[in-house]
Order: sequence, then C-alpha cells, then structure tokens
Amino acid sequence: MVPRYTRPVMAAIWSPENRYRIWFEIEALACEAMAEYGAIPKDAVKVIREKGDKALAAFSAADLARIDEIEAETRHDVIAFLTWLAEKVGPESRFVHLGMTSSDILDTCLSVQLVQATDLLLKDLDEVLSALRVRAFEHKHTLTIGRSHGIHAEPTSFGLKLAGHYVEFERNKARLLAARAEIATCAISGAVGTYAHLDPRVEHYVAERLGLQAEPVSTQVIPRDRHAAYFCTLGVIASGIERIATEIRHLQRSEVREAEEFFHPGQKGSSAMPHKRNPVLTENLTGLARLVRSAVVPALENVALWHERDISHSSVERNICPDATIGLDFALARLSGLIGKLLVYPERMAANIESLGGVVHSGEVLLALARAGLSREDAYRIVQRNAMETWTKLGTPEGKSFRENLDADPEIAGRISADLLDSAMDSRQHLKAIDAIYEKVFGEAGPAA
Amino acid sequence: MVPRYTRPVMAAIWSPENRYRIWFEIEALACEAMAEYGAIPKDAVKVIREKGDKALAAFSAADLARIDEIEAETRHDVIAFLTWLAEKVGPESRFVHLGMTSSDILDTCLSVQLVQATDLLLKDLDEVLSALRVRAFEHKHTLTIGRSHGIHAEPTSFGLKLAGHYVEFERNKARLLAARAEIATCAISGAVGTYAHLDPRVEHYVAERLGLQAEPVSTQVIPRDRHAAYFCTLGVIASGIERIATEIRHLQRSEVREAEEFFHPGQKGSSAMPHKRNPVLTENLTGLARLVRSAVVPALENVALWHERDISHSSVERNICPDATIGLDFALARLSGLIGKLLVYPERMAANIESLGGVVHSGEVLLALARAGLSREDAYRIVQRNAMETWTKLGTPEGKSFRENLDADPEIAGRISADLLDSAMDSRQHLKAIDAIYEKVFGEAGPAA
Amino acid sequence: MVPRYTRPVMAAIWSPENRYRIWFEIEALACEAMAEYGAIPKDAVKVIREKGDKALAAFSAADLARIDEIEAETRHDVIAFLTWLAEKVGPESRFVHLGMTSSDILDTCLSVQLVQATDLLLKDLDEVLSALRVRAFEHKHTLTIGRSHGIHAEPTSFGLKLAGHYVEFERNKARLLAARAEIATCAISGAVGTYAHLDPRVEHYVAERLGLQAEPVSTQVIPRDRHAAYFCTLGVIASGIERIATEIRHLQRSEVREAEEFFHPGQKGSSAMPHKRNPVLTENLTGLARLVRSAVVPALENVALWHERDISHSSVERNICPDATIGLDFALARLSGLIGKLLVYPERMAANIESLGGVVHSGEVLLALARAGLSREDAYRIVQRNAMETWTKLGTPEGKSFRENLDADPEIAGRISADLLDSAMDSRQHLKAIDAIYEKVFGEAGPAA
Amino acid sequence: MVPRYTRPVMAAIWSPENRYRIWFEIEALACEAMAEYGAIPKDAVKVIREKGDKALAAFSAADLARIDEIEAETRHDVIAFLTWLAEKVGPESRFVHLGMTSSDILDTCLSVQLVQATDLLLKDLDEVLSALRVRAFEHKHTLTIGRSHGIHAEPTSFGLKLAGHYVEFERNKARLLAARAEIATCAISGAVGTYAHLDPRVEHYVAERLGLQAEPVSTQVIPRDRHAAYFCTLGVIASGIERIATEIRHLQRSEVREAEEFFHPGQKGSSAMPHKRNPVLTENLTGLARLVRSAVVPALENVALWHERDISHSSVERNICPDATIGLDFALARLSGLIGKLLVYPERMAANIESLGGVVHSGEVLLALARAGLSREDAYRIVQRNAMETWTKLGTPEGKSFRENLDADPEIAGRISADLLDSAMDSRQHLKAIDAIYEKVFGEAGPAA
Repeated sequence: MVPRYTRPVMAAIWSPENRYRIWFEIEALACEAMAEYGAIPKDAVKVIREKGDKALAAFSAADLARIDEIEAETRHDVIAFLTWLAEKVGPESRFVHLGMTSSDILDTCLSVQLVQATDLLLKDLDEVLSALRVRAFEHKHTLTIGRSHGIHAEPTSFGLKLAGHYVEFERNKARLLAARAEIATCAISGAVGTYAHLDPRVEHYVAERLGLQAEPVSTQVIPRDRHAAYFCTLGVIASGIERIATEIRHLQRSEVREAEEFFHPGQKGSSAMPHKRNPVLTENLTGLARLVRSAVVPALENVALWHERDISHSSVERNICPDATIGLDFALARLSGLIGKLLVYPERMAANIESLGGVVHSGEVLLALARAGLSREDAYRIVQRNAMETWTKLGTPEGKSFRENLDADPEIAGRISADLLDSAMDSRQHLKAIDAIYEKVFGEAGPAA
Repeated sequence: MVPRYTRPVMAAIWSPENRYRIWFEIEALACEAMAEYGAIPKDAVKVIREKGDKALAAFSAADLARIDEIEAETRHDVIAFLTWLAEKVGPESRFVHLGMTSSDILDTCLSVQLVQATDLLLKDLDEVLSALRVRAFEHKHTLTIGRSHGIHAEPTSFGLKLAGHYVEFERNKARLLAARAEIATCAISGAVGTYAHLDPRVEHYVAERLGLQAEPVSTQVIPRDRHAAYFCTLGVIASGIERIATEIRHLQRSEVREAEEFFHPGQKGSSAMPHKRNPVLTENLTGLARLVRSAVVPALENVALWHERDISHSSVERNICPDATIGLDFALARLSGLIGKLLVYPERMAANIESLGGVVHSGEVLLALARAGLSREDAYRIVQRNAMETWTKLGTPEGKSFRENLDADPEIAGRISADLLDSAMDSRQHLKAIDAIYEKVFGEAGPAA
Repeated sequence: MVPRYTRPVMAAIWSPENRYRIWFEIEALACEAMAEYGAIPKDAVKVIREKGDKALAAFSAADLARIDEIEAETRHDVIAFLTWLAEKVGPESRFVHLGMTSSDILDTCLSVQLVQATDLLLKDLDEVLSALRVRAFEHKHTLTIGRSHGIHAEPTSFGLKLAGHYVEFERNKARLLAARAEIATCAISGAVGTYAHLDPRVEHYVAERLGLQAEPVSTQVIPRDRHAAYFCTLGVIASGIERIATEIRHLQRSEVREAEEFFHPGQKGSSAMPHKRNPVLTENLTGLARLVRSAVVPALENVALWHERDISHSSVERNICPDATIGLDFALARLSGLIGKLLVYPERMAANIESLGGVVHSGEVLLALARAGLSREDAYRIVQRNAMETWTKLGTPEGKSFRENLDADPEIAGRISADLLDSAMDSRQHLKAIDAIYEKVFGEAGPAA
Repeated sequence: MVPRYTRPVMAAIWSPENRYRIWFEIEALACEAMAEYGAIPKDAVKVIREKGDKALAAFSAADLARIDEIEAETRHDVIAFLTWLAEKVGPESRFVHLGMTSSDILDTCLSVQLVQATDLLLKDLDEVLSALRVRAFEHKHTLTIGRSHGIHAEPTSFGLKLAGHYVEFERNKARLLAARAEIATCAISGAVGTYAHLDPRVEHYVAERLGLQAEPVSTQVIPRDRHAAYFCTLGVIASGIERIATEIRHLQRSEVREAEEFFHPGQKGSSAMPHKRNPVLTENLTGLARLVRSAVVPALENVALWHERDISHSSVERNICPDATIGLDFALARLSGLIGKLLVYPERMAANIESLGGVVHSGEVLLALARAGLSREDAYRIVQRNAMETWTKLGTPEGKSFRENLDADPEIAGRISADLLDSAMDSRQHLKAIDAIYEKVFGEAGPAA
C-alpha cells in the first residue's frame, strides 16, 4: 500500500522489526516448552531468553542489514535469522529451533501479526460505530426522502439511514471477530505436521502464551482456508464502506446537496474551477474498497496448495497481508472521521421531499383509497394517473401539485375526506415506527423528537 | 444464463443441435482431407458426408436421447456421438475420426461456436454504435452541465457525452475483432499435438473451410490463453455498458431528471408506490455487467492447465461460454434499444446548469482575471471566495448569484469589464471546439447548430 | 448451471413453482398477522389461505404461462403473481399485500430459498465428512511420503492427509452454518423500511413461522452484505474442494500412482488412447470450484446499492443463487462419492517413500547428529552433502543409498551408532503422535495399528 | 509490491522524481504549444523551460519535502507541484497550466509512465522468448512423455513443449503491444473535455512530442476502458507465466525428476530437511501470477466512473499501476533466467516414457489393428484390455509389458506382424512432424536430429 494510504500504527505491525521480534518470541517460547518437557537444558534456555531479549530490544538497522546479508547467501529467511540469532546468543543457540521447521515460525508469526492487525481493525470499527451512533441519534427525526432506484420513494429519516449502516457495521464487527478466530492459530508440528521430532505439548505451550489456538492438523503450514475466509471478511467490510461512501457521494451531488464532506479551510477542490467542493474522501473510500477486495481472489486461489504445502501463497501473502489490512485500517479511520464531521442540511432534505409536487405520498393515498373501498387495481390506476400528471408537468406553467390533481379528480371526489388526504400527505407519519426500530438497533429509542 | 436474459438467436449457438452439427462438419471435413491425401477411400467419405448430412438435417429429440443414452454408458461425449453417427452412417463410419482425438473435435467446435457468438456480438455493437451516433448528432448542441465528482463542473453538450461513449464502443468493437481472431483457431493434431497419426495438412484443410487459422502449437487442446484474452475482452465491453448505464441512472435521478428510460404504457414501477418511474433497464445492465465480468477470473484460472492438458477448464467453459455471450448479447441489444428511445429533457438540462447560481463559470472567470493581470494565486482566492459565498447561501434569503457577488467584489471592480464577465458566463462558449471533436470521432461535424 | 452439473433436488429449490409457493406462504402469513392485529378481517384471510393453498397445490404449467402473460404486460413479476392470485382467490384478494412492497416478498422468499439450499449443502458436507472419516481411519497407519513443494519431505500417513481435509471440512461446515444465519432473515417493512403502512409485528409473525430472524433495518431490501458474506463462504468451501481434488489428481499421476479414482466398467478414458485412466472427476471438481468462486466478486459488487436500494443486484442473483448452490451441491455430492470409492495403493506409497534412496530421513539424521554433539551448522553441512550425493547419482551405476553414503562418511564415523541410524531411518517413527492428532480431530484415536 | 519482488529499473518509473519530471515536461510542452499558437509569450516559455529543466535536473529530497509540505495545506497534489514550480521559475510561472486542469497532467503522465513500464516489459518478454527459443532447439529431439490429465498419453519432445510456450509468449507480446497502444494517449482538454479554455492543437503538439496519440474524447480524464484492457492483458501474461511455472513444478516433482531449477551452491532448501531441492522459483512465479491478476477486477471496476469523472479510480491506480508492472517485470526476468539455467534430464525422460510398460503406445496399436481391418469398437476393446492388464499388474511378479501381453493375445495373433508392432511402439515416430511444427513456430526447422 502506498504511504498516502498508510497509517504508521498498522505499518509497524508489518515491519521487519516486529516480525523478528515475534520470531524470537516463538523460538524462545518453544525452547521454554522443550526445557519444560525435558528435551533441552533449562540453563541454556535462560541464556537464550536473556541474550535474545536483549538483542531484539536493541535491534537496529545494522541487525537488519546483517540478516539480509546472510539471506543473500543462504536464500532462506528463517535460516538467516537463526544464524544472526546464534551470533547474538552464542553456543546455547544450538538448542534453538530443534526439531522445528521454518514454517512453524513463519506461519505462527503470520497468525500473531494478523491478530495484531485485526485488533486494530476492531478498534477502527468501534470508532465507526460510535460515530454512526452519535449522528443517527442526532438525526433520528430529520426527515429526508427515501430513494429506490435513485427515484424518490417515500420519506424516511436521515438517522434511520445511518442506523442501517450502524447495524451493517455491527455485523461487520461480528464477522471480523469470527475471522480473527479463524487465523488465531499456532502450528509447531514439524516438516509435514506429524510432530516427528517434536513433543505436541510444545505447540500447546507456545499457542497458549501467544493467545492462539493449536492447529488441529497442520501440514508444515497452517491450512490456507483460514486465510481465505479472513480476506473474504475484509472484502465484505470494504464493500460496506463502499456502500456508505456511495450514499454520501450521492447526497453531496450538486442537485441533491443534502450532506457534504467537511471542506478544510485552504483546501482547493480543483486547480481549474475554484467553485468546486468535491466528495473526494468518499470517492477515495470507494477506490480503497476495490483495493481491499482485490485480495479476495488471490487468497481463495491460495487454498489449494500442492500436497502438504507449496510456497506459491507466500509471495501473495507478503503483499496482501499488509496491503489489505493497511488499506482497510486507513479507510475505516477516514470513514469514522468523515461521519463525525459530515455536514448535514436538513432544510435541503425537507425541500427535496416536496420537490416532486407531493407524488412521494402516492403509496399512502393508494392505501387510503383501498381502505375507502376501491379495488387495488382501480386505486392503483387512479393514483398512478394523477402522479404521472403531476410528474410530467412538474415545473411547467400548467403543472399542478399531486394534491391539486387529486382534489380535481372526479373518481376520487367524495370517496375520501380532505383530512384523510392531509394525513396521507404528512411525511411525519413515516416515522411512527422509528422508536421501535431504534430500540432494536441500539437497545434504546433515545430522546423524543 | 436464466431465460429472462436470453435471446433465442444466441442460445441457439450453444444448443446441442448446433454443437453436433459442427462436430459432424469437422469430422466430415477431416475425412475429405484424409481422402484427398490418400489415407482413406474417397467413396467411403462420400457415404459419410451424404448419410451424415441427412442424419444431422433430420436431427431430432430422439437422436439427442440416443446420444445421451450412449454417453451414460461410455461416460465420454465424443465417443457417444461417434457411436450414434456410426449407427446412421454404417460400416463406412470406421474411417471417421481416424488418428484424431476428441479434443480435435471439441476445441475446434468451441472455436466455431465462439466465432458465431462473436459475429452476433459484433452486430449488436454496430447497433449500439448506430444508436449512439444518431442521438449524439441530435444533441450535439444540447447544453448540459458536465460533472466531475458528481459536482457541477463546466457546461458541455449532451451529444458530446454520447460521442464519448461512441468512441469507447468503437474501441470495444476493435477489441472484439481482435478477440475473435484470438479464438478463431483450429486444432487437429492428435493426442498430444504431434500429428503422430495425422497429416498436418488435414488441419489446414479443415481450418480453411471453417474460416479458422490452424493453431501453431496445440497440445491436444487449443491453448487457453486465447480464451482468457477473449473473456477479458467481454469483461471490458461489459464495463463500458456499465459506464453508460450508470450515466443514465444518474440522469434519471429525481433531483436531476435530465433523461429517462422510455416508460411503457401499462408498466408499473412499483407495487406500492404508483408514482414510480425507475431506471430499471440500466440498473439491469449494471447487474448484467457484473455477471459478464464474473467470467474473467475463471477464464484466467483456466490458462495454467497441467502438462499437455487437463480437463478442469471444461466445466468452466460449459457455463461461461454460453452465459457470458448470452448475457452480453442481451445487454447490448437492450442498450441499443434504450439509447434509441431515451427520453431527453433539454430544458431541465439548461435549468440545472444555472441551478448553482452561476458558479459553474468560475474557471472562465479565473482565466479572465489572470488575463487581466492578476497572479494565479490571487485570482483563485478571489474567485473561490465569491463562489463559496454564492454556493453556501444558495436558496437562502440573503443568497445572491455568482455574478451579483462578483459585481460587488471590490477586488474585481475595475479589473474586468461587464462584457467580459458576460462572455465568461455564457455556456455556449464551451461548445466552440465541438465541430473539431465530432470530426475526430465521427469523421464529420454534422449540421451546424 | 448446465444440466450436466445439476442435481434435481437442488434445482427444485430454484424452480418457479417453489418460488411461487413461498411467495404465497409469505403473503398468507402476512395476512394472518394483519388479521391478528386487527388490520384486516379474519374471515377474508381464511378464504385467502384456503383458496390460495388449493391453487398452489394444483399449480400447473398453465398457471406459469398465465403469470408470464400478465408480467409481459405489467413488466413487474410480483404484480403479475398477485394478479394471478386474485383470479384464484376472488374479491378477498384485495386484502393481500396491503401496505407491503414487492421486495418484502422477493427478499424474504430469497432468504427461504437460500436456507433450503444451505440445508441441502449442509447435508452434502456431512456426507463428505463421513466419507473422509471412514477412509481416514482405514488408512491411519498407511505410511506415505509427505511432500512439500512437490518434493519428498518426510513420511506421514495417508489417513493423516485425509484427517487434515476432514478438519478443513468441519471448518467449512461451521462457516456454512454461520452463513446460513447471515441470510436467514425476513423483511416486511414497506417501501423504504419504515413500516409506514405496516405493523412491525407482521414482520415478526412471518419471520417466526418461516424460521427466520426479523431484519433489524431493511430499506425495502435486506442489506446485501449478508449475501456477499454468504457467497464468500461458498467460495471458501469450493476452494477446499479444489484442495482435495488437487491432492487426488497428484496422487493419480502416472509417476505417483498412489491413489486412483474408481474407473467404471465400460468407461473409456480417451477416444484415441485405450490405455488411459484419467482423474476426470477431480479435474471436474477443480473447474467447478472456479465456477462457484466466480460468484464471489459480483456478490461483493452487489453490496453498495444506491440509497435505499437499486435493482442491479437482481440480475446477478437470479443467476448466481442457483448457479453457485447447484454447482456446489453437485461438487460436494461428487466428492463424497469419489472419496468413498477412491482406490488406494499402500504398496506403491511404501515404494515411493524409499524411491529417493532414503534421503527423506535427512531431518532425523540431522537431529541425531546434533544430539550427538555436532553444531547445527556442521550437522547440516554433512547431512546435506550425503543427501545430495545420493540424490544426484540416483539410478546411475555409481549411485548409493543415503545410508550407504552416511556409513562411508568419515565425519560421521564413530559419532553415531548403527542402531541410532537404523532408528533415524525408520518411517514408522513419524506416526508416533498419530493417536494424539486423531484424538484432537475425531475425538477418538481408533483401533491400534 | 514488496522490495523482495521489485527491480530498481521498474521501480524508478513509479518514483515521485520521475512523475514530477514528466509533469514538468507536459507543462513545458503545453506552454510551447500555447506560445506557438499565440496564447502566451514565447519569451516567458523560454524562461519556464530553462529554469524548470534546471530545477528538475537538480531535484532533491528537499524538493520532495517542499512539495509534500504544500500539499499538506492545499490537499491537492498538482497545485502543490505548480506552487513549487512557481517558486523555482518565478513570475513567468503564471503562464503555466493556463486553461488546463489537473487531470490533463495526471492522466497524460500516467500514460507516459505506463508506456515506459510497457517498454520494459516488452524487453522482458523478448528475453523470455529468446531463452525459450534456445532451449526449444536444444531439446527439439529430446523425447519425453506427453501427459493429459497428468496421465501418460503419448511421446512428444521436450523442445516441442517449450515451442508451445514460445508461441504463447509471442501472442503475449502481440497483446502487450496492443495494450501499449491502448494506454499511449494524451488528454489536454480541460475541465470536462471541451477544450473550452484551450486550443485543441496544444493537445496534439504535446501528444506528438511524447509519442502518444491525442485522445478522441476525454472528459477531464482519459477513459478507463483503456486501462482496464491494459491490466487484463497483464493478467493474461501472468497466467502464461503460471502455465510454464506449473509445468516446471510438475517436472521437478520427486517422482518425475525430468527437469529442475538451478540450485545455487550454499543454498538451503529447508531448515529441517537438508536433502531438499525445491522448485521455489516457479512456485514464486505462481504466486506472483495471482498477484498480477489481482489488478484485473479493480481495473474493470474503475471503468464506470460517474459522469465526466469521479476520482475513485485514483487510489486503485496508485497501487495497481506500480504493483502489477513491478510484479510482472520481476516475474518475467526471473522466468527468462530460470529457463536459461533449467537443468534438463533426458535419460530420466526416456525412462519415464517406458515406465508404464509400453501402454503409452496403445493409440498407435489401435490404429494398426484398425488398418488391419478390425472395427474401431473391437480394436478399442482388445487394446484397452491388454493395456489395463499391463497397467494394473505393473511392478507385480505376474506383471508383463504391454508388448508381451499383446503378443499373447489370441485376438491379435496373425492380424498384425511383429514388425508393425515394433514400429507402433517406437517413440521416435511421434517426432515425424516436428520439422513442420518448428517451421511454423520459429520460421526454421533448425539442425536435423
């Protein structure tokens, strides 16, 4: 992920320093476990732990360079690290990595990094939820038009729109917690997963201390269906970001102008057109959603490794693990910020509701006529005729409002009272269930209108 | 593809009848070639051709059932067909398929079907191009606002919008012609492509008569990079359909109302809201674009077959070949129809241009001030200030038009004449290059405004 | 999905008959609820239920044609159905669908169909699990070589391979249960989800009787993040199928020949090469996996609908819902069958283990030397030298086995006893943890070897 | 793309320095054109060109930091650059960018970068082609078994395998040249592509000097169908890399051992198993192919921008443009190297051909029996019976070769001479058309065997 869309806190998780720190921790814990179960001397482990902790605490660019140098010769990253570690630890290093295979370190480390990344994403999600909740209550009674197919349908509230995104992000949080469990596993099972040179208790010891589960069957590698499920979840969350970004982009359109991204003082929307205030943040989120989703297909293609493992997944994961988590972290952080600062224009929302001459109340009028005894088919025909008459002449000299047209329709005359029509055309009736919905979503209805 | 989105003319290409017809044609042509080069008796080929042609001409449901019955036993589709053919042709059938392998028939047949499908798609593209051209000339001078980021930018013409889609579809046609060449190849090269039991001239003979090229190196199968390139092309075209569909969906939005899909008499937009006129056709095209594109990834995954071939691509192609071509054919046919009948509202377009109080002319005013000697930075600052003043008070009692604000700005006073401002705020100047663009796109500028 | 890969039991779920049956059930239940809460007369509901049940029970091709005919005019599928229903039910039909919108029916019906499909898939998964379990216990002690990178690594057991797939399919079952919960929701909330013309209790009533949850916030439609998560899950399962299919394809390779798909009497592997026995079923599963996965991207693209809903997702779902569930059902059914009948060749497995001259025991020898006091680096160097000597001369006149080379190496001489080397080269030691693993996976170790 | 898979030569194309150099070149050329057509003073342009060239030649980290600083305030990258340029150029800078919009610079620059990247990729492809050609001629007569479904089919030559990849890469080169033409366009057409404030000749002037075509209709942006087609092409090429990588991975399998990646002295294949020599380069190419392909879907999703443009494509392209071109460049460079150094084992190939007891000649025996007058059905039955007898008893005490079984079959006795059988079982006959194929592929047959 390019630096432009990278937050340091997530990038740090994917740094070589963090990786080597985790590698050492896994090796050290495995040594402790082996000592515990009698395979290696406890004294040696003490030395490994002390000198190793010290070397990692003091880890510098020179150490990075040294490891790279060894890898250039051995062409094997774990061997390079172990050789460097041996230089730091001394003769006791011969007890490190005994009976283990590189993937025991690599895959368990990836699990730890993905868990760290996920915990950050969960925090991001909480901030999105918090921002949505605040604004949903703020605009619980802010009437706005609901739109299907981009066409005015019936009134709703702006808060209810946000509540819908809120529950979607609650689902996303639940999915991410499930995905975290998918990838929070540990494998220390040797060359093909038989524990041939290892006590299975080592794996349990390490797993427990790292907050992971022991993998039931690993085959040198942790099976990649777990990672596929994980990246699919990131893709679903990214799509949820795209949905709310698309909503805001629509609301900010020049013809709609019901909401607007905060525009910074000094900001220039266009080098050529000084009047521009563009929804660039939500457009950016739309693009980031595509990027995060682009990890889904390669992650699925990574599942069918050959036999006990091949290494085709590795180059994929070296990229998609940082890219997708960094991209999603950036997008979620941007999203919570923009929701919090979103400019909302209730007057414009109110004006837009009425901008089609009142035809948005056609559904309620239809029901009123049906209740008054007309067949559904007749009622539909009459209401559609008046709505179309209103719609097609909107803004022309001969244009009349929906109500005017209804009042003048002989098929309606006498069937339905003016009071009933008034009530059918009152947008506020559409909020009658809002308390019930908020109770369902937030566990509380909040203050009355 | 579900019948709802299937046109019979494309479905027929993928019918078993058409497939068996092509299979026989390939076998018969191969027999002719073998007779030509002395491998089998010409008299036998005459019998094969005559009885085979007759059997295929009379092909009925009973024949289909008979082939299915044989396949149920042999579990091999080509052997089932050849057995059925032998029943029809008699003893001469022993010269059919000599030295050939099933894929010689299957892959060459697929090429023929894809060519047939492509020719239909090319015809569809011509109709889209024709509809776009007609409407582009009709609306060459119809002023409308150009929008970047969904925000009003500067005026353009509705015809120019369509001209942009026209050139995109011309590119799509060129791409489809290239894709047609990709898959128009013939392989009759035997079990692993060595022509071990076949004269290479047989392949050339058959290829020429079927309008195909002989494949340079086939390995039992025609290499699948060709099909991957083909489906990628369908995906690009589908995305072009989505682009124009998205444009129309935007233009039909209740707040924009600049264009509208034709609404059939008797059509009901919604069971609950009689006033609705929804852009359902373009929404449908948006979905169909997703479907056609969904063939791209599996087609790419089909390339890396094992060794000389495996058969994993087969189940994929049995689905995506008909689905993607049928879906694209339906979408293109729908698109040309809806462009031809699209309702366009020039008055509404004109009104929308001015709906932001004239700030859409900020770029031209900026240039006028720069020409009048202000630094770019100062000019930008002044114009932005007035545009924002106009924009943020739009529709409020204290709101003034952009022109009124400019006129009242002391930093502008005296720097620029009223005439220059008038001219800077005249939308028609944005069409000054329209003839040049139309010449580039259509080879002619068309009648003057 | 083409008929070739379609099982009738899954296809029936997606038939028009089943859809109309569910539509009626939703309408009838909604009527019951409305009557319960006083909105419509109970007598009328009794008529609707009785006449409706009867009409659906007698549903015939003529009914289908009648609905299609009405839809051709109204261009609205739900209105077409309701009109047909009105013809069957009579005047009481005016109480049907009151205050509801089409999507209340369509989306809730889709949930019911997806639940039905999922329940079938869960049954399929159980059969795959059952077949894997049986074969895993059968081959718990069948030694075979484990391979990383396609290269012999260390011995494992064929049962353990299957146990790994077993736990993966247990994860897939858990994921599918979670996905089932995702899409098992009901929305009867009206035009934009405000319950403006509906009592929210109607939704709860219908949901409960259909075994669904009421959707917290629907916006005419059930939010599509649910369906995206669902199809992602199908994609992960498909990839798990591809993994085991790839394993079997590898094992059946001519050079490996450790396992083989059952070959039917009368089956012909190739029209040109009578000797062929190809792993066509697992190749087919590989292709089907690509097809099922092709639903993932469009399902993710369906999430960001415009505002309260657009209908772009509809054409996508009309295809991917049947295609992906039918394809996955067929693949799972095929998979459980082929695992059950898989031909396994333990002698060949045993022979392959030794085919590299014993170098597959290099890891254990390395450890033995390390335990004998050599540094890891020296031990690695010595063992690698002898392994490479063995490997590169394999099958040549001067070739010696790994053991012979070790015995002749002066750097090893005296460091390690012949008994220790014997033990290091005994494949059976790799199964020492097999009971522990089986306990973890199956909850029981099964009978001893 | 992580540094591990990045070559500096491709990374440099995507560096900020290169981008700013191109930006300046476009601005400077546009100034020259404007001066040419009288819009701005030639003297000023001379100053802009001289001072600008000097500033770019001396471009340093301090300049980068300064531009970043300005962008942090203006939140607009092009304005930031222009402001920095003005600091370097002085008052004449007011003539820079006159009437242009940021995208004129951004999109034209992207075209230049993509062309630069493509030219490097074309060079990479030439090296792959060259390596394939050399090895194809080297192994033109090296007999090896052809495999369909992973099962031995009939003999072919290893050179012919490579020739097949050679023609595929020739197609890939042709596709990449076509893709280069797709994205080699220039747009300098202003805010919505009307040339409202610009002379269209400026665009032609700049395009010509940059080696680009003028875009027929741009709408602030160059239409993204071009980029979609470009990334699809990269995806097809990546899949071709995967195909040859998969072939080599198969050939290196322990049971096959017909070819092997070069193994560096000092290289360690596994930290736990000193005997390992793994095909890690081709596995890596397999993963890189997945990564490059992952750009295809987001590139397709970028096509349908809103109206004249939105900016959702930007974050996508900031990542996929460098990632996909860097990844593909690295993969192609790795591929040509590994083909050149690939270890090939002809003796092992010869041994594998015969390892199934001669059944790979079943097709030729079938034809010989058919030529001898047996019906196809009878011949097939007889040959299949003997092949299965051979196959199933392979390696057992009672096992006989295919030839021995045929000789003992009473249904064959007397029908076909020993000489004919000898000839049918001679692998060399499968190369009889090899000269003809090489002529087609390489334009020359090369030296005789």
